[in-house]
Amino acid sequence: MWLKLNMKVKQGERIDSLLLEGMKIIQRSDQFCFSLDTILLAHFGSRPRGPILDLGTGTAVIPLILAARGATSIEAIEYNPIMADIAQRNVLLNQKESDIHIQKGDYRKLQAWYASGSFATVYANPPYREKSRGAYSQQAGIRRACHEETVTLEEVIKAASFALKYGGYFRMVHITERLTDILAVLRRYGIEPKRLQFVHSRLDKASKIFLMEGSRGGNPGLEILPPLVVHRDDGSYCDEILSYYQGQGEM
Amino acid sequence: MWLKLNMKVKQGERIDSLLLEGMKIIQRSDQFCFSLDTILLAHFGSRPRGPILDLGTGTAVIPLILAARGATSIEAIEYNPIMADIAQRNVLLNQKESDIHIQKGDYRKLQAWYASGSFATVYANPPYREKSRGAYSQQAGIRRACHEETVTLEEVIKAASFALKYGGYFRMVHITERLTDILAVLRRYGIEPKRLQFVHSRLDKASKIFLMEGSRGGNPGLEILPPLVVHRDDGSYCDEILSYYQGQGEM
Repeated sequence: MWLKLNMKVKQGERIDSLLLEGMKIIQRSDQFCFSLDTILLAHFGSRPRGPILDLGTGTAVIPLILAARGATSIEAIEYNPIMADIAQRNVLLNQKESDIHIQKGDYRKLQAWYASGSFATVYANPPYREKSRGAYSQQAGIRRACHEETVTLEEVIKAASFALKYGGYFRMVHITERLTDILAVLRRYGIEPKRLQFVHSRLDKASKIFLMEGSRGGNPGLEILPPLVVHRDDGSYCDEILSYYQGQGEM
Repeated sequence: MWLKLNMKVKQGERIDSLLLEGMKIIQRSDQFCFSLDTILLAHFGSRPRGPILDLGTGTAVIPLILAARGATSIEAIEYNPIMADIAQRNVLLNQKESDIHIQKGDYRKLQAWYASGSFATVYANPPYREKSRGAYSQQAGIRRACHEETVTLEEVIKAASFALKYGGYFRMVHITERLTDILAVLRRYGIEPKRLQFVHSRLDKASKIFLMEGSRGGNPGLEILPPLVVHRDDGSYCDEILSYYQGQGEM
């Protein structure tokens, strides 16, 4: 296994653990590395129906966790060629090549690869910040993953709407600061927000990010799930988060 | 005091305690009686700046609590003449006539009494349900308070927008089910949602209602406050709610 691992790791890369079914993940410190937000999104809601599309997959963390949860028929698209290359090797490293296909390319042009309405579930962990706002990273890859340099909120949602079949689900993680925009744009593209879950670092802290599930062509009517509180009073992770890292969560 | 109280109470009415500064409130069982939602809204956020307007004040619970919190210059409008009459007597009963003025009338025609932009803070605890949805009460007064028979979501927000000065705040309680509509309509009428707080009966339950503060002409950018969890695990009220009933809350 280690020989196989080492063969797949290039200069400047490192191997991190996904701690789920012993999965391993190659990352590069000078590129965007997955965060808790990505893990939360991949565990949000029941096991998704396929076919599944992940918009801007990065190193393929979401597809790998979904595959560990039993999902199959996962297409994952990535624009940054360095990341798409790592994603491809992560799929091989974890022997998920029968469940996950990495597509290099721009998800603003999905029609180059997929017919509209091809997917039952679409995921996105898109850049959070508008181009002119917030602190910028000097690393182009990280900047593109955090700021809307190559893709805007509207383009992400437009791509999800194109890809989803009627009644299909869109799941996204984003910042609470932009919630009003997000709900408005979802509706403009025919995706009705159905479930929101706010993530609080502690129970007495404001929520910075939220998880969202919308339905293509769904009826109005929104559910606000119980808050997801990351840390207990003593600073330790709550049981739900621990289960994600230990593979004990709902699969 | 009891003689004075009794003189103000009519047939079919009862006197309840607001438990705040020993305030008393006349209500009628065959009309809409205030609920926890109203109490939460009246305690939401810092002490409001005046002049203040309460849209659809019912028995004047919100103005009375605001006055107990130190607010002055409160106009409270009520369409139902039975309720407006009780509201007027509740103000007298609690000796708040120098702080609160009850206006009988339809708040879809605010211009009959007030110039646009006259208020620094506007409150609303409006009917929650669309006319055709949910269980109906046989009592006309209760039905009008719960369903959009006399006023729609859009009309409430339009009235708030008319009444508020630039930079003034609109505070409202409403059901989470309609959050997407509410945020969209607020923006359409120039009130930017700035703060939301979701109310959960228990930490592991979905939220049914939320508190909202929007700013007339404000910039985009929303804060999701820590969740307001009403009951502890043992079923007792949480400290924040208890403080509202015992007058120990921030004044």
